[in-house]
Amino acid sequence: MNRTLLSILKILSKENKIIGSKEIAKKLKMYGVNLSERTVRYHLKILDERGLTKVYGKEGRRITERGRKELETASTVEKVGFIINKIETLSYLSDFDINAMKGRLILNITYIHKNKFRKALKAMENVFTSPYVMSDRILVLEKDSENILVPEDHVCIGTVCSVTLNAILLKHGIPIISRFGGVLEIREGESYRFGALISYDGTSLDPLEIFIRGKMTDVLGTIKNGFGRVLASFREVPIVCLDKVKEIYSIMQKRGFQGIMMFGEPNQPLLDIPVGMDRVGIIVVGGLNPIAAIEENNIQTYTTAISVLYDCRELVVFEEVLEKFK
Amino acid sequence: MNRTLLSILKILSKENKIIGSKEIAKKLKMYGVNLSERTVRYHLKILDERGLTKVYGKEGRRITERGRKELETASTVEKVGFIINKIETLSYLSDFDINAMKGRLILNITYIHKNKFRKALKAMENVFTSPYVMSDRILVLEKDSENILVPEDHVCIGTVCSVTLNAILLKHGIPIISRFGGVLEIREGESYRFGALISYDGTSLDPLEIFIRGKMTDVLGTIKNGFGRVLASFREVPIVCLDKVKEIYSIMQKRGFQGIMMFGEPNQPLLDIPVGMDRVGIIVVGGLNPIAAIEENNIQTYTTAISVLYDCRELVVFEEVLEKFK
Repeated sequence: MNRTLLSILKILSKENKIIGSKEIAKKLKMYGVNLSERTVRYHLKILDERGLTKVYGKEGRRITERGRKELETASTVEKVGFIINKIETLSYLSDFDINAMKGRLILNITYIHKNKFRKALKAMENVFTSPYVMSDRILVLEKDSENILVPEDHVCIGTVCSVTLNAILLKHGIPIISRFGGVLEIREGESYRFGALISYDGTSLDPLEIFIRGKMTDVLGTIKNGFGRVLASFREVPIVCLDKVKEIYSIMQKRGFQGIMMFGEPNQPLLDIPVGMDRVGIIVVGGLNPIAAIEENNIQTYTTAISVLYDCRELVVFEEVLEKFK
Repeated sequence: MNRTLLSILKILSKENKIIGSKEIAKKLKMYGVNLSERTVRYHLKILDERGLTKVYGKEGRRITERGRKELETASTVEKVGFIINKIETLSYLSDFDINAMKGRLILNITYIHKNKFRKALKAMENVFTSPYVMSDRILVLEKDSENILVPEDHVCIGTVCSVTLNAILLKHGIPIISRFGGVLEIREGESYRFGALISYDGTSLDPLEIFIRGKMTDVLGTIKNGFGRVLASFREVPIVCLDKVKEIYSIMQKRGFQGIMMFGEPNQPLLDIPVGMDRVGIIVVGGLNPIAAIEENNIQTYTTAISVLYDCRELVVFEEVLEKFK
């Protein structure tokens, strides 16, 4: 199924009522599909023939049950929107206000079998007192919440995604670009070099999920010995924004956030990675380092990075979680 | 260690004799490092101080044992050259002649424990009679060969890498570009869509290795039922070359090669993936599909994709291997 058909189906699914081809043509423009009403009707006929939509006289069309199913399976195509789109969309949609500590920030979602949950907390304990974590807070759900379903016998952990930094900066008018997800080698407690890199605009799978799955991290070893490999990402901001970024970051730190490991020099490569013209590189910790630590303890996790917008007031300081589940 | 120091060390390691700074400066240009002799001497002093090189009077310098070790650990930095560089380098270096069936083609290298080797052959059997393989030939090494070391108790399998197609086309003056490695969904035996994609010019890890490790393939299911997921890649050629590509591909087929699953239309997206201006998309099977089938049987493999140039005459028709190890 091509993108046009898919976009029409999506519109019909979202509207969930009978709408006409004129209305559809108008809404299609929002998806970047610019078609005449006539051409839309041609595509609608294809959908009719496949039983994915149904005509209701002159009023227009409605999506069928089969159409919904098709849309569901077609959502993998959506995935082939690259990760950069997910980053940009959630950064834009987040309404998190760092000054008021209000609004929805961006979480990575992980499910763990409840029998393993205490062991998982133990594995994360040292990470939450290390520099390799984004925030001192975490979401823990034992039951479904408004927008997260928790599978039976599982606990859901939400870790603050480092894309939250993008959201905060964007709200201050700073256009930050996420370039690479990587595995950062640490030596004597210092960032040394990237051992692996995947560009966010060239992958449909999240790089940090790939590195965790590939068992390429050693977060716990890094914390213990000062030598190891942690998840990190490479970002860029225009030189002109650098002071403002540092200013906002100091506010973030007062609110229990951290995560920026290194600022580069204007127009200079940072850890051998070149930056764009008139830009500065920034190295940010991966929000998934606590989850990497869990996997390093051979506890299986089911993780989706950059997953969901969530009300920041639902998050709890990690120490309190630890206390509660002692 | 920065790229300049690394490049100097590499030159000294390759030469493996005493050479002067003038000579080094000349060779550095080959690595894209353009420095005066004076600057090279400055860098050499740094290397001396770190004990990585040693001065021999006026003649010049030589790499030390410690220098070699540093180079070895630093080779991860090399990896952060993206996979596209590996593809282009090996395509260029390959001297495989499809007409004469002579020269070195490009192999993926996989090690399997010898106890699992028979089971692995069994797993690959159906792949080699399917459309999802590059060639009917395979390399099997039970002992070290000239340029491949085989670890104790292991067998080495070399599968023809699909980059061999690039090499063959390049020799005919066709500039083929490898864009994405992907997991291709097959329905009723037909290519349906990509379920995951990673751009070759944005990753330091091979995409197909990632997909195998992530257990994202179902090569055996695809062969059995016509529905499933196989490894594939997306390439592009200029429209003007299309007829020549088809002509060369028909010669390849007569020589026991295959692998092109789909040709796109000029300037048209192929399976929803847009192509560059005045280009045609081509979908090529992943050379690692036989290895994916082994992993689907829960046999552990150690694989390096796009690994080595190897004399094509050392490869054997898969059926003969099967016969030999019956």
